[in-house]
Amino acid sequence: MKRFWSLFFILNLCLCSLTLQAQAEEPKISEQTQECIGCHVMATPGIVSDWEKSRMAKITPAQALQSPEINRRISVTAVPEAMANVVVGCYECHSLNNASHKEAAFEHNGFNIHTIVSSRDCAVCHEVEADQYSHNIMSEAYANLMHNPVHKMLVDSINGIQDFDGSKTILNPHNDEITDAESCLYCHGTIIKVDGKVTRETALGEMEFPRLKGWPNQGVGRINPDGSKGSCTSCHPRHSFSMAMARKPATCSECHKGPDVPASKVYDVSKHGNIYKSLGTKWDFDAVPWKLGTDFSAPTCATCHTSLIVDSAGEIIAQRSHQMNDRSPYRLFGIYAHAHPIKADTSIIKNKAGLPLPVELTGEPASEYLIDAETQTTRRQAMQKICLGCHATSWVENQYKRLEHTIEQTNAMTLTATKILATAWEKGAAKGLAQKESIFDEAIEKMWVEQWLFFANSTRFASAMGGADYGVFADGRWYLSKNIQEMADLLELKLALGQDKAAAEKKPAAKK
Amino acid sequence: MKRFWSLFFILNLCLCSLTLQAQAEEPKISEQTQECIGCHVMATPGIVSDWEKSRMAKITPAQALQSPEINRRISVTAVPEAMANVVVGCYECHSLNNASHKEAAFEHNGFNIHTIVSSRDCAVCHEVEADQYSHNIMSEAYANLMHNPVHKMLVDSINGIQDFDGSKTILNPHNDEITDAESCLYCHGTIIKVDGKVTRETALGEMEFPRLKGWPNQGVGRINPDGSKGSCTSCHPRHSFSMAMARKPATCSECHKGPDVPASKVYDVSKHGNIYKSLGTKWDFDAVPWKLGTDFSAPTCATCHTSLIVDSAGEIIAQRSHQMNDRSPYRLFGIYAHAHPIKADTSIIKNKAGLPLPVELTGEPASEYLIDAETQTTRRQAMQKICLGCHATSWVENQYKRLEHTIEQTNAMTLTATKILATAWEKGAAKGLAQKESIFDEAIEKMWVEQWLFFANSTRFASAMGGADYGVFADGRWYLSKNIQEMADLLELKLALGQDKAAAEKKPAAKK
Amino acid sequence: MKRFWSLFFILNLCLCSLTLQAQAEEPKISEQTQECIGCHVMATPGIVSDWEKSRMAKITPAQALQSPEINRRISVTAVPEAMANVVVGCYECHSLNNASHKEAAFEHNGFNIHTIVSSRDCAVCHEVEADQYSHNIMSEAYANLMHNPVHKMLVDSINGIQDFDGSKTILNPHNDEITDAESCLYCHGTIIKVDGKVTRETALGEMEFPRLKGWPNQGVGRINPDGSKGSCTSCHPRHSFSMAMARKPATCSECHKGPDVPASKVYDVSKHGNIYKSLGTKWDFDAVPWKLGTDFSAPTCATCHTSLIVDSAGEIIAQRSHQMNDRSPYRLFGIYAHAHPIKADTSIIKNKAGLPLPVELTGEPASEYLIDAETQTTRRQAMQKICLGCHATSWVENQYKRLEHTIEQTNAMTLTATKILATAWEKGAAKGLAQKESIFDEAIEKMWVEQWLFFANSTRFASAMGGADYGVFADGRWYLSKNIQEMADLLELKLALGQDKAAAEKKPAAKK
Repeated sequence: MKRFWSLFFILNLCLCSLTLQAQAEEPKISEQTQECIGCHVMATPGIVSDWEKSRMAKITPAQALQSPEINRRISVTAVPEAMANVVVGCYECHSLNNASHKEAAFEHNGFNIHTIVSSRDCAVCHEVEADQYSHNIMSEAYANLMHNPVHKMLVDSINGIQDFDGSKTILNPHNDEITDAESCLYCHGTIIKVDGKVTRETALGEMEFPRLKGWPNQGVGRINPDGSKGSCTSCHPRHSFSMAMARKPATCSECHKGPDVPASKVYDVSKHGNIYKSLGTKWDFDAVPWKLGTDFSAPTCATCHTSLIVDSAGEIIAQRSHQMNDRSPYRLFGIYAHAHPIKADTSIIKNKAGLPLPVELTGEPASEYLIDAETQTTRRQAMQKICLGCHATSWVENQYKRLEHTIEQTNAMTLTATKILATAWEKGAAKGLAQKESIFDEAIEKMWVEQWLFFANSTRFASAMGGADYGVFADGRWYLSKNIQEMADLLELKLALGQDKAAAEKKPAAKK
Repeated sequence: MKRFWSLFFILNLCLCSLTLQAQAEEPKISEQTQECIGCHVMATPGIVSDWEKSRMAKITPAQALQSPEINRRISVTAVPEAMANVVVGCYECHSLNNASHKEAAFEHNGFNIHTIVSSRDCAVCHEVEADQYSHNIMSEAYANLMHNPVHKMLVDSINGIQDFDGSKTILNPHNDEITDAESCLYCHGTIIKVDGKVTRETALGEMEFPRLKGWPNQGVGRINPDGSKGSCTSCHPRHSFSMAMARKPATCSECHKGPDVPASKVYDVSKHGNIYKSLGTKWDFDAVPWKLGTDFSAPTCATCHTSLIVDSAGEIIAQRSHQMNDRSPYRLFGIYAHAHPIKADTSIIKNKAGLPLPVELTGEPASEYLIDAETQTTRRQAMQKICLGCHATSWVENQYKRLEHTIEQTNAMTLTATKILATAWEKGAAKGLAQKESIFDEAIEKMWVEQWLFFANSTRFASAMGGADYGVFADGRWYLSKNIQEMADLLELKLALGQDKAAAEKKPAAKK
Repeated sequence: MKRFWSLFFILNLCLCSLTLQAQAEEPKISEQTQECIGCHVMATPGIVSDWEKSRMAKITPAQALQSPEINRRISVTAVPEAMANVVVGCYECHSLNNASHKEAAFEHNGFNIHTIVSSRDCAVCHEVEADQYSHNIMSEAYANLMHNPVHKMLVDSINGIQDFDGSKTILNPHNDEITDAESCLYCHGTIIKVDGKVTRETALGEMEFPRLKGWPNQGVGRINPDGSKGSCTSCHPRHSFSMAMARKPATCSECHKGPDVPASKVYDVSKHGNIYKSLGTKWDFDAVPWKLGTDFSAPTCATCHTSLIVDSAGEIIAQRSHQMNDRSPYRLFGIYAHAHPIKADTSIIKNKAGLPLPVELTGEPASEYLIDAETQTTRRQAMQKICLGCHATSWVENQYKRLEHTIEQTNAMTLTATKILATAWEKGAAKGLAQKESIFDEAIEKMWVEQWLFFANSTRFASAMGGADYGVFADGRWYLSKNIQEMADLLELKLALGQDKAAAEKKPAAKK
């Protein structure tokens, strides 16, 4: 009997090992994908190896559909027959859906191929996520920046080349797609268009490829050649498409770390971030659903904004959502913080002054474009339900009171800076809308931009996520207060200079 | 015989596994804690799971006391009988010691409960640490900031709301506990007070809770409802209370990363920090004592400032200490660096000019409040003993020579900035103490603050910890030197403006 | 038969364990090194433990030479007989090669010892790497900074102590080796010289040691007592000399994180950096060669600039190189970006204006000192071959087009700032070369320095490595554009002030 158990134990070990090997060695790869790999294992070996380690390379859609719904990572109920029983490989993503890609698709070694896999391609299996994402303000990040004349004016003032003629600066007209693509549009997304064809020498002889403008890009609001918006690879990078990756805060940090939107830096100094950094190497970032306290013990970005979260009994705390702002009552980011816009496309907004802004320059919200108090309450409660997974009600309520108070206070400090700028415009120390000039190109205007874009935003993110450094000395209240003093000093000096000039111009005139 | 060994091996494996399971499944949890968990596993599942994984949930104080002293994590020699033979669960921390919590304790489902576990509560088992901590300047972080009129003036100038009346700025009176709580007091600690009661709907029907002001907070100098100071959870966050967490630098970074006190950023670019980030995932952060070279091969914050460190032979290199400044001969942080204050409460200090500062504005130390040269030597040697665990004497001595030289140099650069500011005050380009005005509210004053608070401090931390970036271009000497030039330019321009104004005022007068 | 297998399995386990133990317990340590360890296990236990875990402590050079060349970490074909059959321990590095160390070598407990192991010492086994490194611009980092009068002027303006006499600032003459050693020279490297002897009390009684100036230091261009340049420990820190460490980006961050050269920060927000941070804990950083896609799935600094990289078939993608700039067609860092210098020692360069700079102040390159277009192409292709391991040709080509465009654009924005500064010099608002004064000591000059040193450099690094934050709001184009406006404003105000002064001086003169 004893011998039996020892034998059983060892056999069991061997069987496990064989089973694992079998799974790893025999994924059902389509013939077409096998052919792709045949060349690309030499042409681009890194991404082939990367894909081979991915879940995509190990599970067919048909297998994925057999998981209980709560564990499922696929959101359609059926996939096209040609894809169902093979793993999701090169051909499946880069070809099957390529009719819609128009001239971006091309003949490649006997196959029709498109280089850029779009959100519409991913939607073949992940339809619910693609749909949710289309309601996410991020999916419209291109238009929200480039089709909003005020925002475009800001882009021009930053990316445009300035010159100096010996007495004054000149901002050259800005129409430079290459610069935009690697600055603002790196995150917002470019428009990818086919711009002719190019022939290249390859290991298999000459081959023809479409020449792509706006490429490479992985911005969240990328306009794909098939007209769809967004690039899933922003957060699920090729070709491992790892869920762990998307759940780790480094992923979001790619676009949320700058002084304009320092969510990642704030998280880094928050208690949540510190727990993640200290203990996170032992957490399970691959589990679906994601079990609070068991798989992880402090939230990452994805916990509060995206993932399907359950408690230890399996009860759902938060539904998976790719409309990441659907638990955000406010838009913290902006000239003033305000209720969240209703539509993902914010370039349609017009305030009373006729500007495409969700607030007046005085801070009053353009309410018809913004969610109402009831929707705010629903969103607040959805977010608070996650907080309540670990914190008591009084903790959570006070946390939100502080955030709302901070919104008020930072809006007030922006209004003060706006008053100084308005005085500068009025008294001729700077030229703004009334003079039909850019409101972003002069030093005092740029100081005003920093007041809200860097300092008020940082202070609000710090409040929302508990990263006090960014509420005080790291781009926070210290700078909110200092910047006002510096703006006031500059205004005073420029007005004095202006009076001198006026006086100087007056005197000779008097002598005529 | 061979069969015997194979059998023995397998049985052993099984036994180990059973034993581990038994330990994990059957910690002796008090009946009261079991009752807490019964509801809270649904009410706040995250913290229940977190606690279940903690050492607190697995070892009773009586068991902890059986460890050899060198391995012990408990510092009393006996615990109250009611606690000795159960693991340290909800009830043990949130109830047993609650008489002292006064009106912050409340009836909750048949138990007397206090929400906030104070340093006095933790002292039931960790008395030595609580006592040491009371001598740590951090335990007085609230008073040191808020009861020092000069420091309070700085708080007001940062957190107060400014307005602009068309020609000048106005700093509104500041008395905003909510803003303070999420900026300065996030780290320094709030005063937590009961402010009435509140009734909430819960899964178990209506329940009454105390309404807490200043909550949530985990600041190092938090004033608890029982009058005790400090919140152990600053560094040992709930509810895993992980030693690894406190030993990892992310924990300290929560309050030591801003430009005012960039210890964490300096560590990040130091050789020590780089070794930790590259190799630290393989180190043992849970061992007590912590064995140099074996458990870790480069120091984290805790190594030099807190932990019990031994060499490979078990010889003690450093005693555990929660008076973290007891190896610090200097206080690097301040208008000028100086010998460390004697007492944790620095709000009692008065310099010759009558200001509550450990230095004069000229840099001369208020020596009677500061440790003497002998104590400095003792502290220096205690710290150097840790350095000498890896570095030769010449290395360590030269390292300290550099730090002392840097203190002198940065103090000199602060003095220069102070001279410029004093001239501004004197000649009417700004208003300071002589005019009974804030010394922190005007642009040139804020530039002066940055000279010491950001740039001199960064340079000194960089010197102390070998993170040269912060000694040069990252908030270091580059800015020390640039800021002086900018202050001098602003002074010159403001004086010229003042003369113009004076002249302008004089002329019409002359015409009378 | 079954019993046989169960037995075999267990015996195997035991044998493995015994073998591992044997390897760990019996490395062939030289008698001399054993004697070193005998004391130093108590004197400096941390580094002894650290070394014991290193590869150096486990493999003799003779064993290392038996590896196939592709797997070898040693680059000579033979080592001195005395070293061949012992592991590389204390004595082997700190003594065998000590004749060349001159007076830095000393009698120590019966041995001749030198404290500082130089790049020449390491070259005994790693000759190819030491030779490559000597062509790396980093090996000349000391001379390139300190022997270039323009760069030295910058050092003086930063590290020199300024004073204020009530009306103007004074930059004191700067000759402070201690400050330089812990600011600029921390990374660039100090000159280490023997400065007398010192007697110390040790556990073994009084001992005499050389007193070292410029020590400690691990800068990349350190001038060692044996005259060799560079300190291998910059990237391979003592005493684990871990390859994993050198391949992780934290190592490079020690000197490449500041605003002047933010490669590490840019990497941190790049897609590559995010993948590393999210998934890198599972990669193999010790494998030689380093297999793309298998050992790692996104590049670190070492992947593109240093390591021996192969594809999954073992084909070489990139040769190991310690001349880290040999895949860099451009030098991105500088007043203007330009073709890479030919020689590592750049202090020999003279531009047409006679300045020791690789460009004119107008941006025109001093071409005779810079690599030609053909070499640029070779280097570009070498780097692109690594990119092509994962990315298609169109991706890689467009990436380089963007970088080249960004070089042009940032150079243009630097030229504009230079024009403003030139006007200031010309019209007397600042004093520059024409007035035989420092071009770095006044506020407007320091603003100009930030234009190229911080903002243009950041924007270029962001372009090169895909970290857009640093191309826009994090020290990027936002600041490039803002800084020009602030320089123009300051110039205008200073000129107005100058006219006032001139007028004031003229009037009394007219009255004479």
